[in-house]
Parts: sequence; structure tokens; C-alpha cells
Amino acid sequence: MIVGKTPSWRIVLKYTGRPVAVHVLVATAVVIAYSEFELTFLAVPALPVTVLAATVGILLTFRNNSAYDRWWEARTLWGSLVNTSRTFSRQVLTFLPGSLSNETSAVSSVPRAASRLLRTAVETSPHGGTLGVSDGAVRDRFGKARGAFIAPHAPTSEAALGVLQAPREGRADIPVLFESITADARELVYAQIGFVNALRCHLRRQDPFPSIQPFFHPSVVEALREEQNVPTAIVVWMSARLRRVLSEVPGVESMLRLTILNNSLTDLMNILGACERIKNTPIPRQYDVLPHAMVRAYLVLLPLGVVSDLGLLTPFVTAVIAFLFIAMDAVGRDVETPFENSYSDIPMTALCRTIEINLRQMLGETELPPPLQPEDGLLY
Amino acid sequence: MIVGKTPSWRIVLKYTGRPVAVHVLVATAVVIAYSEFELTFLAVPALPVTVLAATVGILLTFRNNSAYDRWWEARTLWGSLVNTSRTFSRQVLTFLPGSLSNETSAVSSVPRAASRLLRTAVETSPHGGTLGVSDGAVRDRFGKARGAFIAPHAPTSEAALGVLQAPREGRADIPVLFESITADARELVYAQIGFVNALRCHLRRQDPFPSIQPFFHPSVVEALREEQNVPTAIVVWMSARLRRVLSEVPGVESMLRLTILNNSLTDLMNILGACERIKNTPIPRQYDVLPHAMVRAYLVLLPLGVVSDLGLLTPFVTAVIAFLFIAMDAVGRDVETPFENSYSDIPMTALCRTIEINLRQMLGETELPPPLQPEDGLLY
Amino acid sequence: MIVGKTPSWRIVLKYTGRPVAVHVLVATAVVIAYSEFELTFLAVPALPVTVLAATVGILLTFRNNSAYDRWWEARTLWGSLVNTSRTFSRQVLTFLPGSLSNETSAVSSVPRAASRLLRTAVETSPHGGTLGVSDGAVRDRFGKARGAFIAPHAPTSEAALGVLQAPREGRADIPVLFESITADARELVYAQIGFVNALRCHLRRQDPFPSIQPFFHPSVVEALREEQNVPTAIVVWMSARLRRVLSEVPGVESMLRLTILNNSLTDLMNILGACERIKNTPIPRQYDVLPHAMVRAYLVLLPLGVVSDLGLLTPFVTAVIAFLFIAMDAVGRDVETPFENSYSDIPMTALCRTIEINLRQMLGETELPPPLQPEDGLLY
Amino acid sequence: MIVGKTPSWRIVLKYTGRPVAVHVLVATAVVIAYSEFELTFLAVPALPVTVLAATVGILLTFRNNSAYDRWWEARTLWGSLVNTSRTFSRQVLTFLPGSLSNETSAVSSVPRAASRLLRTAVETSPHGGTLGVSDGAVRDRFGKARGAFIAPHAPTSEAALGVLQAPREGRADIPVLFESITADARELVYAQIGFVNALRCHLRRQDPFPSIQPFFHPSVVEALREEQNVPTAIVVWMSARLRRVLSEVPGVESMLRLTILNNSLTDLMNILGACERIKNTPIPRQYDVLPHAMVRAYLVLLPLGVVSDLGLLTPFVTAVIAFLFIAMDAVGRDVETPFENSYSDIPMTALCRTIEINLRQMLGETELPPPLQPEDGLLY
Amino acid sequence: MIVGKTPSWRIVLKYTGRPVAVHVLVATAVVIAYSEFELTFLAVPALPVTVLAATVGILLTFRNNSAYDRWWEARTLWGSLVNTSRTFSRQVLTFLPGSLSNETSAVSSVPRAASRLLRTAVETSPHGGTLGVSDGAVRDRFGKARGAFIAPHAPTSEAALGVLQAPREGRADIPVLFESITADARELVYAQIGFVNALRCHLRRQDPFPSIQPFFHPSVVEALREEQNVPTAIVVWMSARLRRVLSEVPGVESMLRLTILNNSLTDLMNILGACERIKNTPIPRQYDVLPHAMVRAYLVLLPLGVVSDLGLLTPFVTAVIAFLFIAMDAVGRDVETPFENSYSDIPMTALCRTIEINLRQMLGETELPPPLQPEDGLLY
Repeated sequence: MIVGKTPSWRIVLKYTGRPVAVHVLVATAVVIAYSEFELTFLAVPALPVTVLAATVGILLTFRNNSAYDRWWEARTLWGSLVNTSRTFSRQVLTFLPGSLSNETSAVSSVPRAASRLLRTAVETSPHGGTLGVSDGAVRDRFGKARGAFIAPHAPTSEAALGVLQAPREGRADIPVLFESITADARELVYAQIGFVNALRCHLRRQDPFPSIQPFFHPSVVEALREEQNVPTAIVVWMSARLRRVLSEVPGVESMLRLTILNNSLTDLMNILGACERIKNTPIPRQYDVLPHAMVRAYLVLLPLGVVSDLGLLTPFVTAVIAFLFIAMDAVGRDVETPFENSYSDIPMTALCRTIEINLRQMLGETELPPPLQPEDGLLY
Repeated sequence: MIVGKTPSWRIVLKYTGRPVAVHVLVATAVVIAYSEFELTFLAVPALPVTVLAATVGILLTFRNNSAYDRWWEARTLWGSLVNTSRTFSRQVLTFLPGSLSNETSAVSSVPRAASRLLRTAVETSPHGGTLGVSDGAVRDRFGKARGAFIAPHAPTSEAALGVLQAPREGRADIPVLFESITADARELVYAQIGFVNALRCHLRRQDPFPSIQPFFHPSVVEALREEQNVPTAIVVWMSARLRRVLSEVPGVESMLRLTILNNSLTDLMNILGACERIKNTPIPRQYDVLPHAMVRAYLVLLPLGVVSDLGLLTPFVTAVIAFLFIAMDAVGRDVETPFENSYSDIPMTALCRTIEINLRQMLGETELPPPLQPEDGLLY
Repeated sequence: MIVGKTPSWRIVLKYTGRPVAVHVLVATAVVIAYSEFELTFLAVPALPVTVLAATVGILLTFRNNSAYDRWWEARTLWGSLVNTSRTFSRQVLTFLPGSLSNETSAVSSVPRAASRLLRTAVETSPHGGTLGVSDGAVRDRFGKARGAFIAPHAPTSEAALGVLQAPREGRADIPVLFESITADARELVYAQIGFVNALRCHLRRQDPFPSIQPFFHPSVVEALREEQNVPTAIVVWMSARLRRVLSEVPGVESMLRLTILNNSLTDLMNILGACERIKNTPIPRQYDVLPHAMVRAYLVLLPLGVVSDLGLLTPFVTAVIAFLFIAMDAVGRDVETPFENSYSDIPMTALCRTIEINLRQMLGETELPPPLQPEDGLLY
Repeated sequence: MIVGKTPSWRIVLKYTGRPVAVHVLVATAVVIAYSEFELTFLAVPALPVTVLAATVGILLTFRNNSAYDRWWEARTLWGSLVNTSRTFSRQVLTFLPGSLSNETSAVSSVPRAASRLLRTAVETSPHGGTLGVSDGAVRDRFGKARGAFIAPHAPTSEAALGVLQAPREGRADIPVLFESITADARELVYAQIGFVNALRCHLRRQDPFPSIQPFFHPSVVEALREEQNVPTAIVVWMSARLRRVLSEVPGVESMLRLTILNNSLTDLMNILGACERIKNTPIPRQYDVLPHAMVRAYLVLLPLGVVSDLGLLTPFVTAVIAFLFIAMDAVGRDVETPFENSYSDIPMTALCRTIEINLRQMLGETELPPPLQPEDGLLY
Repeated sequence: MIVGKTPSWRIVLKYTGRPVAVHVLVATAVVIAYSEFELTFLAVPALPVTVLAATVGILLTFRNNSAYDRWWEARTLWGSLVNTSRTFSRQVLTFLPGSLSNETSAVSSVPRAASRLLRTAVETSPHGGTLGVSDGAVRDRFGKARGAFIAPHAPTSEAALGVLQAPREGRADIPVLFESITADARELVYAQIGFVNALRCHLRRQDPFPSIQPFFHPSVVEALREEQNVPTAIVVWMSARLRRVLSEVPGVESMLRLTILNNSLTDLMNILGACERIKNTPIPRQYDVLPHAMVRAYLVLLPLGVVSDLGLLTPFVTAVIAFLFIAMDAVGRDVETPFENSYSDIPMTALCRTIEINLRQMLGETELPPPLQPEDGLLY
């Protein structure tokens, strides 16, 4: 994806340079033939040129419209992939059981928090008075707190709520449990990161294994090597793993948890299939060939049609119109294929990195890779 | 968002002033060169001008169409955010358990009402005869009540139903319970208000903490400071908190409640991701640059094409057409980015305030901030 | 909404009368100035007029397209409101428990039927042989029944099935129960009627209380007066009431019933929010102002461009084109705001009446208000 | 709906005959007046004609676009009705309990199969070895079976699997149960057939009772006669009946079954409401009247504009253009109303028949009505 | 579907050859008649030609737009079919019970894995320490693993994780169970493969039985022969089979599993119905006939309009414009019917093969048919 506000001329020329040059040369040849060698039969009246121009314009717009719709659908699918990845991980952290031995005791049916943030969610309300105080404070002082909303620093309200920052007991033992309990959850969240990377490579026809290796157990990677459609296989694997993990919970409740997580897996499968559809099914080739052929035919006719009126300005006008039509045709052809490693590619590598950062932070990890930066105004 | 019916000329000029002036100057120069200095080779025939005009018009329409679609999608997403916020809060008030000690007794499995309105929902039907009377009255007298429907004041039907306004016993003790029971609910609803404010700041690349501070416990705010994607983290926090709160309810029922609330959290995550998609993925730059370049090229050609026919009127006609084309190009560029603090921004601050008012009123609070008013015909 | 096939000229003139007259006068003035006073510099060549015409046409189409999409979305939302109202009422009648004392006995776990129709649903199959006979008859005789399908009267098949109309015992005691049991259901269905009326007034910025008074208990109406967003408050109230009513059913089953009804309430909230979105967010003002300005500029240029060719016919041609462009601009402006009490309003009052008739008939009521009739070809 | 590839000229002429003839006559009159009586002031320059033509074309396309969208939405709704009817019937056959006495025994909790096909689904796997053998056979021999896939006849694989066609015991007693158990299911499936026929008549403003009589018990038909909205009433009736039938199943399980079937009923209600929306809400009349008026105004101007150039060819050219514009206007007007018994109607009668055939075959019936055939190239 | 980048000229000529030739001949005849025989009355002014050209272009674009939308909807439906097939199979493997005797024991409530991949999902976490170690390793070494992400080979992290590849006990006995348990699952997954093949043949009006025979028990195939709508019947059969299989699981849990699988069957039914809708409902014939007639009328007028200006170039220009218009008309007609075995067909056979490969690999089969390859640049 081109990120910079002003695309470098290198890209523009790569798109349009050669064909525009060709047509300018043709126009120059026509001018010379017409004015120097007086081949006046070359001069065609302007009428058919006018007629064709409108139709070519409409045709190019129709084509760019379809191409842009495909591109935006592809981008929306990857946006959904970001959402579903986050939601799936959130659900894994919420719905997976704790370790089996603790599940029966009341207090441990809550999943152990993976990160400092999640610890605040689980710990701050020990049935007791703290919460009542907390909320009372927030609400009673709210007129002032709103003032804090406008003036960013709001020292008063922070102070007012400060009493709640007193240490809570029972916190020390959490980290001990923390290491072991979220093992299943971490494995599933890692599998999700692996899935998005596998999907990226699948769409770009690259070998997925270097990218997904860090996120799976080696035995899983080995088994995946035998699969023809790696992303599909990962979803099936996650499904079986979830079923395995949730079999520790009694029947009906297990099914209810599985139902929720199953919906997210179905969403992943739908996103995968829709990306494959866009990848494998181009716009009917006829809609590709017709505008292309017509633009070229039109640009051959154009100098003939205007040479008698414009004379020496013919190559200049031809260049402007050729640039517009050829650029629109080339952009349409490019945007139409959003998974081809071209300039207009959906920035899948960057999105995979974003997902990895988000999901690993949910797991409470702190050594995260940096977001991908654009290079030369391009983001892949 | 521009709210006033007639946008101030200040905005219009800011958009189009400079470039239109430039092109009018160019046109004037062309007229002078043509008529005073008799540089007649400048006069181009009108044909290519006509040809380009239609294509530029179609191109600008295609571009404005895409831009408007993005803008409307962004607005629809924030509309969904309003809906989901209200629905999430309604569900929190409906599905969260009462305090654990009371859950087992039949009468208290109903959540305590937060506001006067909700008290009417919970109290007015104590299994007994009142309801039968009430409804009998409404239905029996309905022919008359319909009359009341047309004549606004309808004193008769109000009087007829007035007997029901007799005091109900058992009401006095509600406020006592009220303070403590809805603590969890209030915390979650406040977190939802915090989420929408965090999303607003996230999209406008602003520091979210001044805005979300009043709605969270200080320890949560501290933990959130470590997160890279604050809105995502808030949703994950709400999910863990819900799981914690609902762990007081027996297994299967707890899962059913969690399923419903989980759907709302998934909706929030989807809205967040879709907003990020619109924010981070501009329309392919080519569709931005091509119309812009073409409008400018066209406006340079225009005076050359019409100077021989129009003479001194050339600058005037150029001004009109330049205004139309430049304004359409600028509007498209502006509307295309709905989260950039520009004139065409989605009024996110106002929507956040609306959500805050609605949600806090659901909690029974009465000291509410006023809705945001537009300034200078602009609403942010 | 304009209902009549041929809109009265009064409406047409109200839209276009004055501006068209102005432009015809201008055109007449131009003709007089040109031909009588020989101000020939007024005659502009036809070219820029042609150029602008196409662009103005495309711009007006783009604008009318967006306006129509908004209008149709608004109409679709109110169509969904009709559907959801019917579905919510159907679900209330199906899923609400009978009176608590009877719930435990097997036979009474079926809701008592509110209307004669619903009695046929509940009564006709008392576990016994009747049904087998009934269906056997339908199927065995079906060759003949199909004949009845083509020939409307089908006396034979009616006679064949007539034996089933014999009186069923146990029917007499239904009406006795009927009065009291559906009290909760009736209250909720009435609340739904109140909701649609409140939404209508909310969107038209009218006082909702005269319209919703007949459908609520006075104490609820009083409590609603304190709410800023009345329709939202009604949905929250219905949610709390449902929770209250269903608390009589054992835990898990209650949650399952609540889940279904909760979905309908979420739909109502989404419809409400989407209507508010259309109401509060106009098409970006720029798209409103640009076509308007351009149409007027074009219509000033038009007589100048054609006066030399058309002479005395100029005002006539100007009138025709002015009518077309001004009408399209005015219609777009009007259709774009579907909740403003204008000619193109969604007929919300009529739809509210339709919903009221449908829902009260579901409750078995027979004294129903008549459907709203159009006045002067307009339906509000 | 017009089915034939080449529509009969009768239809074409009915659409366009008269108005085209009128305009050809006008054009002839203009030619005679111009050339014979030399009324040269009639000859208008071609310019305004050109200007208007493009705008009229764009306007007609916008209108036909909206009309086609409505038509396709209507068709899609009836397609969904086909799907939902099949799904509802499938669910009725799957989720309705067997006869109450047998429900408790393990083996009879499976619904009795209605047709020969469904018997294969229920019978072929009596816990035992057969299935293992069956599937083993399929899989082991699959290389060969694939050959059969390409060569249609595949005698080998049929032979190989032939051992499984050995008679199974316990089959003889199925038909005995079969008659009585599916009575509830048959009644509900028949009600579904009745619903689609009632909806068809409702949309065409016809009396539904001749069509729905064969599918309901006479007492239900009698009760339906009192209802204002018959299709709505049928859905409510089905809902109550389902609740009645499922009350024989224990609480939670009954609710789960009801939840699934309830979703299909909600879909039916949504389809019904959406059809009513299209039926009752025309495209804003202004978009109907403006193109119509403009086409006629244009066709009056046209001969004036071209008579000086074309002379005697004027009526011919007028006829061609009049045919195009009048046909497009008429087709738009026709396609815009898909439920009006016009040539462009959705073929609802044929779809009702298709649904009837599909659903009755699911019930195991074999004497089915034939599909509806088009008459004169039209299908209703 | 045309796959090659450059469609063979054979296809192009088949589409446009004859009609273009006819119009070129007509144009040549006009030129000869005009210049040789001096039939000058043939020369029509260019104006009406210009007028019609724009309208014909807009009309063709509108038509191709609708046609392409249908084609893309058809492709999207088959994409959804791929997704739903994979999801259904995944759900079958996840939610179907193991053999009844083992269901009660804790360890066997997990479905036996069908493939090597799924064995890794079920086996790798025997409650014990392995997993904790595994994940700890992945996380602790992650900085290095990220390096591996960039450098594909990553020997270090593989080595680090290598300890986990130690043999696990208990694996040997899995294959024994494996053969028998997945019999039900395999039968259902095969039925799904049969369904997509039956749908393909149903849409192409071919005999489905050669294609579906290998995937069903012969008794099922026999029963299917009596069905009018084979794909519908297969879905109903799968529904009954699922109900049969899941009747081995206790009530509520069985219903929850059935609910999930039921959703996938509903999706299949919806896809089937939507494909039938596109197959059976062409674009209203009027939109087919009008552009066709207009293109031909225009191409007859064209040589008359340009012969006086272009002279001998007339046939050449006619050929170019005729090719553009006829090709667009023909492509629209072709793309509009995506299930007709034409060049623009959705490649259903290839998609069926893809589904078969994916699903059979999920079952752990290794002898898979190869993907379908395009022939002559066409994929069916």
C-alpha cells in the first residue's frame, strides 16, 4: 500500500512511462507526417474521437469501480481478521477453564489474569466494601471529575480516588499460578498469530513455515507440512484443541463455552475463504481486456483526430490524455489484485505484526516486536 | 461536521480560495497575452477541453462517491457504537446478578432498579391484583384513550388510571440496597463510557488518559498506561471483569448470561477494528492523485481553449468552473478522512457526550453534563 | 409520503415555482437586452454551457442517489420496526410464563391463548386421535383438495373436514383464565406500541407524552418524564420488566427465554440508533451547497449561451431546463431528510397505527382503530 | 416475469406503441410544417437538444437502477422465503419430539422418518458394524470410486458396495408408527405452505382463503377470517402451536429446540414485512414524474432541433429515440412494482408451487402437483 | 471462467466476429453507395449519432454493472459454499460424540483425531508438565524466535524446542480406535462433498448421480433418485442423520451440539436457494433486449452519420466502435448467466474438487485427487 501523501515519481513512471512515451512518439510522427509531408488524409474529423472518449471514460470508471470494490473488500476482510483475532484471544482468556484441580473451588473458576491489566479486573472487587467506596467516590465527585475531563491533569479527582491505591492482600500468590494456568490459552493465542501469518503467505504464494514456526510446537509444524491448505488446517487444529481443553469442564457448560469460541473459528474460516475467492477469481478477463484495447485504440485515433486543429500542440495534448487514460487503466489492473505483492497490496505483513503485538500483549508479554514501518512510502 | 444550513464563507474560502485565485490569474494572463500581445498560437480549439471535461467530471464523481461511502460507513460505525453502548448497559443492568447473599432468595434474583424508571419496572407487579386492574383499565377504556391520543391532554383517562398512583409499600427499603448492589454494574457501564472516549482519542491520535480517567479506578488507569492499544485493552478488561462478576452465578446460567454480554463485547471489538481500518487505510493514493492532477491540468488548458471565443469573459468562466472542480476535489479529500479533526470529521466528541448522558441516566444519576453544542456551525 | 399517482400541481409549484420564475425573468431580460438594446457582448458561445451541463447533471444524479439511499434506509428501518414489533409481541405471547401457580403442572406450561386464533393453536391437539384423523384427511384427500385450490369454493373438502368442528370440551374455562394470565404480556405489548410512538415523536421533535400515555401505567409515564431519551428509556424499562416477569421461571430456562427476547430488544435499540443517525447527520453540507450553487450559476449562464441561436425561444428553453434542474435539486434536498414532516417524510404515523392494529389484534382485542388514510395524496 | 428469450412483439407494443406513434406523428407534422409551409421559425438549433439528451439519459439510468434494485430485492426476498420454508420444514422434522410415550426410551428419541430418504438416515446405523463396514468400503476403494466419478456409470463401485443393500430388520414396523407420529410436523409444514400462499395473495391484494384452505384445519381457517393481516396471524399461530407441541419435552431442552425454530419464524416475519415495505412504499413519486415529464418534453423538442438538418428523415430518427426513451421509462415504471400482477411481476405463484412440492416431498408424500409452466412466455 | 491473462482470439472472435463483420459490410456498402453511386441523401448529419452514442454507452454500462453484480454474487455464494463445507466438516469432527461406550469416561469424551495433525491437537497436552515447558520455551526465547521469523531457517529456536519432540506414550493405541470412531463423521463429511457436487449438477441441469454416487451408501443413492430436488434432499438427510447420531448424547448437550451444526445446514440451504434464484431469474428481459436493439440500431446509423466526413475510413471506424459495443453487449449477456456452462461460468467443477480435497484431508485421507487444471485457458 502506498502510504506517503505524494507518491514518488518513480512509481508513477513505472506505471505509465513506457506506454505514454510510445503514444507521444506516435503523435509526433503524425504531426510530422501531416505538416511536413502533407499526408492530409491522416486527419480524421474530431467527431468519432469525441464519441469514443465519453464511452472510454465511462468504461474505465466502471472498471475502476469494480477494482476498488474488490480492494476495499479485501481490506475489510483483513480488518475483520484483526477484529476476530482480538476477539478470539479475548474469548480464550475469558472462557478457557483454569487448571482442572482448581475449577471446583469457587474462587478459582475465574481464569487467572495474564497481564497486569487483567489482574485489576479480577482482583479489585473481593466482594467487599472497596468497590462500593470506589464507585461512590466516582459518582459523588463527578461534577469535578468532568472538570478534570476538560483540564487534562485533574489532580483533585486523582487524589480523591487515591485511597483505593492502597495495597490489596492476596496479590502475591497470583504470579505463581500465572505461569502455568494460561498455557492452553497461550498456545491457542499463538496458534491464532500463526494462522494470520499462514494466511498471509498462503495468499502471496509464499512458504508459510518460516513465518509460523515460532508459534507452534514442532510436532504441530511437522504435521502441518503434510497439509495442502495450511490455514484451513490450523483452524481445524484449533478447533480440536479447544474441544480437548474444554473437555475438562462438565458437559453442558463446556458446550456453551465451545459454542462461543466455535463462532470465532467459523468467522476465521469465512475470512480465509473470502480472501481465497478474491485471490483466485479475477474480474472476468473480458472487463480487463476491453478497456485496455479501447484505450490503446483511442490513443491511436486521437492524434489523427486533433492534428488538423492543434498542429504542433498535438503531442502535448496526447500526452496529457494518454497519461490520464493509461494511468486509470493501470491503476485499475493493479488495485484489482490486492494480494499480489504489488504497490497496491493490502499491507498484510504490517497487519500481521499489529495482530501479533496486540495478542501477545493480551497474554501479558512485554518484549514485543515494533510495528512495521513503511519503506519508501510503501507498506507491505 | 458542518451543522449550519449555510456554511460560513470562511470555510468555503479556506477550501477553494487560493487555487481558484491562481487559476483566475492564469486565465487573465492568457487573455492579456492573447488580445494585447496577440500570441494567437495560445488559442487551442475547444475540442480537447470538451473531451477532458466530461472525463474529469466522471472521475470526480467516482472519487466523491468513494469518499462519501467511507464517511457514511464511519458515521454508521459510530451510530452502532451508540447503539451497542446503550445495549451493553441495558444488558449489564438486566443480566448482572444481585449481591451474592441475596441471589438464592426468590424475590431478590431480580436486579435492583437503578433509577426511578426501573423501579416502576420491578415494583409495580407484586404478583397480585394491581396489574390485572391496571391492564383491565387500559384496555376497557381504550376507545376513550384513543381520543386522548389525538387530544393531547386527555384528563379523563389520566384520572381514570389515577387510582394506581397510590403508594406501594416495600418501596422505602430499595434505596438502601440500591447503593451497594449496582456497584459492579456501574463500574462496567463507566468502563463502557471510558471505552468510547478512549476510541475517540485513539482515532484522533490524542492522549486518551485525561478523558478516561474519571471512569476507571486509578489502578486500572495505571495498568492501561502500559497498553499499546488502549481501547482493545479496555474491552479485554471488561470481559475479564464480567467473567469475574458472573462467577458468582451457577455454571450453566452464568455461561448463558456471559454469552449475551460477550456478543456486545464482540460488537465493540468489531466497531473498533473497523474504525481503525478507515483511519489507517486511505483510498489508494492513485485515486487521490489522479483527479487532483487532472483537475489542475484541465484548468490550465481551459483558458487556452475558450479565450478565442469568450475573450474578456474568460477569467469569469474559468473562475466558475475552477470553483466547481476544485471544491469537489477538496471536499472529496476532506470527507475521505472522517477521523482527522477536519471540518468534515464525524462529531465524535458530541457522540461520546451523548453516550455518557444516556448511560449515566440509565444508572439513575441525575447530575448529567449538557449535550455538546456546535461552535461556529461546527460540531466535533 | 406522496401517495397519489399524479401529484397535485400545488406541490410541484411549491417546490419549483419561484426559482423557475426568477430564471425565466432573467432569460427574458437577456433576450430583450440582446435583441432590443443590441447588447451583443452578452451572447456567450454555447461551448462552456455544454461543458457545465453534463457536469451539473452528473453532480445532481450523485446527490439524488445519496439522498434516495438515505430515504430508503430510513424506510427500511421503519419496515424493520414493524417486523420487530410483530416478532417481539409474538415472542412475548410464546415465551412468557403462565401464572406462577400453574407453571409446575404439565398441562399449563403452555401459555394461554389471547385470541380465538391462538386458541385453535393450543386446543386442537389434545394428545389424542383427533389430530391423526385431521391430518390423515388432509393428506389422503389431497388430490381433491388441490382441485379446491384452483376452484376457490371447494365445498367437498370443507365438508370432509367438517367433522372436526365438533365442540371440544375444556374450552369453556379458557376465557376465565384468559383475563388474568396475559396481563404481563399485554403490558409488554402495549409498551412496544408506546415505543414506536415515542420513536416517531422523538424523530419529529414532538412531545411524545400525549401519544404514549394510553399505553403505559401512569407511574411509568411519570418516571419517563424525567428521561432525556424517552425511546431508549422505554427499551430499558421493557428489559427490566421482562427480567422481573421471567424471574418466576427456574434459572437456566429463564435465561434461555430472556436470550430470545433480549435479541429483539437489541434490534429495537439498533433501529432507534440508526434512525437518530439519519436524523442527526445530514449529508455533508458541501454536497448540499455545491449542486445548489452550480445549478444557479448554470441557469444564469444558460440564456447568455443560447440567446444568439434561439432568440425569442430562449425563455421557453430556459424554463424547461430550469424546471428539470431546480426540481432535481429540490427533490434531493427534500428526500434527504426523511424525518422532517415534509412531503417526502416516511409515513411514520401511518406505520405506528399499523403496528398498533397488528399488536392489539394479537392480544385478542377486537375494537381496533382504523388504518390511517392519506389526506390530499399525502400520508404522514 | 417474462421468461422467453425473445419477448413477443405484443408486449413490446403494449408498452411503447401509443406514445411512440404520437411522437412520430408530431415529428411528421413538424416536417410538413417546416418544408411544405416553410414555418422556418420552428427549426431550433441542435444545441439544447444535445444538452438535454445526456441529462435525460442519466436520469433514466438512475431511475432504472433504483427500480431494478427494488425488483431484485423483491426477488431475493422470495428466494429467502423458499430457503426459509425448506429450512423450517427440515427443522420441524428434526426437532419436533416423537410421540410422548416413546420420548423417554433411548431409541425413540429420534424422530420417525417421514420419507424413504429419511428412513435411510435413521436406520442405516444401528450402533453396529454395518456402518464401519460401509465407510470402510467407501474409503478403501476410493481410488476406484474416483474413476467412477469421471466415468459416469461406475459399475464396479456399485457392485462393491452392493453387499450393504442386504435387508435390514426392524424396518417393517416403521410405517406403522410413521402415520401417527408426524401429525404435528405435517400440520406445521402445511401451515408453512399456507403462509407462502397467504403472503402471495396478501401482496397481490387477493382473497387468500381459497388458496390456504387445503392447508389448515377448518377451525383455523375460520379463526383466520377474523384477522386483518392473515400472514402475520399464521406466523403467530405457528409459534403458539410449536410452543404447544414442544411443551411435551422437558424445560431446558424444549427451550433450546424452540429457540432454533423461533429463529426461522422471525425470518418469516422479516420477509413478510420487507415485502410489505416494497409493496406499500413506491419510489418517491417525484422520481417517477420527473423522468416521465422530461422524456416527453425532450421528444417534443427533438423534431424541432433536427428538422433543419435531417429533413424527411426526422420522423424515422424521432421514432428510434422515442422508442428507446419511452421504453426505458415504461420498463422502469413496471419493474419498480414487483407485486402488481404486471408483466414484470415476481413469479410468486410458481414459487409457491415450488415450495409446496419441496415441502410435501419432505413429508414423504408422492402425489405432488406439477411445477407451474409459463404461458405465452410469462410466469406468474 | 477465463483464466489466461490474454484470452485466445478464438474466444474473442466467437463473441464478436459475425456481427462486427456484418456491420463492416454495411458500412462498406454505404461508402460505395455514397461515393460511387453518389446517393448523397444517405449522409445523415452527425448530431443524432452523437446523441445516441452517449445514451447507448450509459445503457451498456448499467447492464454490464447488473450482470457483473450477479456474477460476483454467484461467485461469492460458491465461496461461501467452500467456507461452509470446511466449517461443517470441522464442526462434525469437533462436535460428534465418540463411540457411545467410551463417551462416559473422561478421557474419551474428546473426539478421536482423524489425521496426524489432529492427533497433535488431542495428544500433546496430557494435563501434565509438557505443555507448561513447551509454552515457557516459546515465550522465553521469543526474541530469538522473532529473528527466526525474518531469517527463514531459524535453527536455534528449532533446536531449543527440540526437546519436546521426545516420544509421548499412549500414542500407539490411537490408530486402533481411529478406524471405527470417525465412521459417522466420515459419512457426514462425504455427504457434504456429495452435496456440493449435486448442487453443481443441479445448477447445470446435469444428472447428479454419477458425481455423487461415490460419496453415499447405495441405499441413500437409491432413495435420492426419487427426489425432485436432490441437493435439498441431501441437506434434509444430513439433518436427520445428525439428529440420529447425536441422540446418543444426553438431551440438553445434544441439543447444543445440534444447534451449532444446524446453523451450518441452514447456511447450506440458503446458498442452495440463492444459487437457484440466480439460475432461474434472469435480469428482466427488457434490460436484455433494449441494449441489444439499441446497439444494432446505432451501428446501422453510424456509417450514415460519418460517411460524409470520413469517406473511405468509415468501415474502419465502424469496425472499432462496433467491436466495442457488440463485445460489451455480448459480455454482459454472458456474464449475466454464471451457471450455464459458458465461457464466463463460475468454475464449479474446480471448486467442488477443492472442497473434496480439503474435506478428505481433514478426515486424514492421503490419497487425494489432484486439483483441476485449466484447459485452453478455461476453468469449469
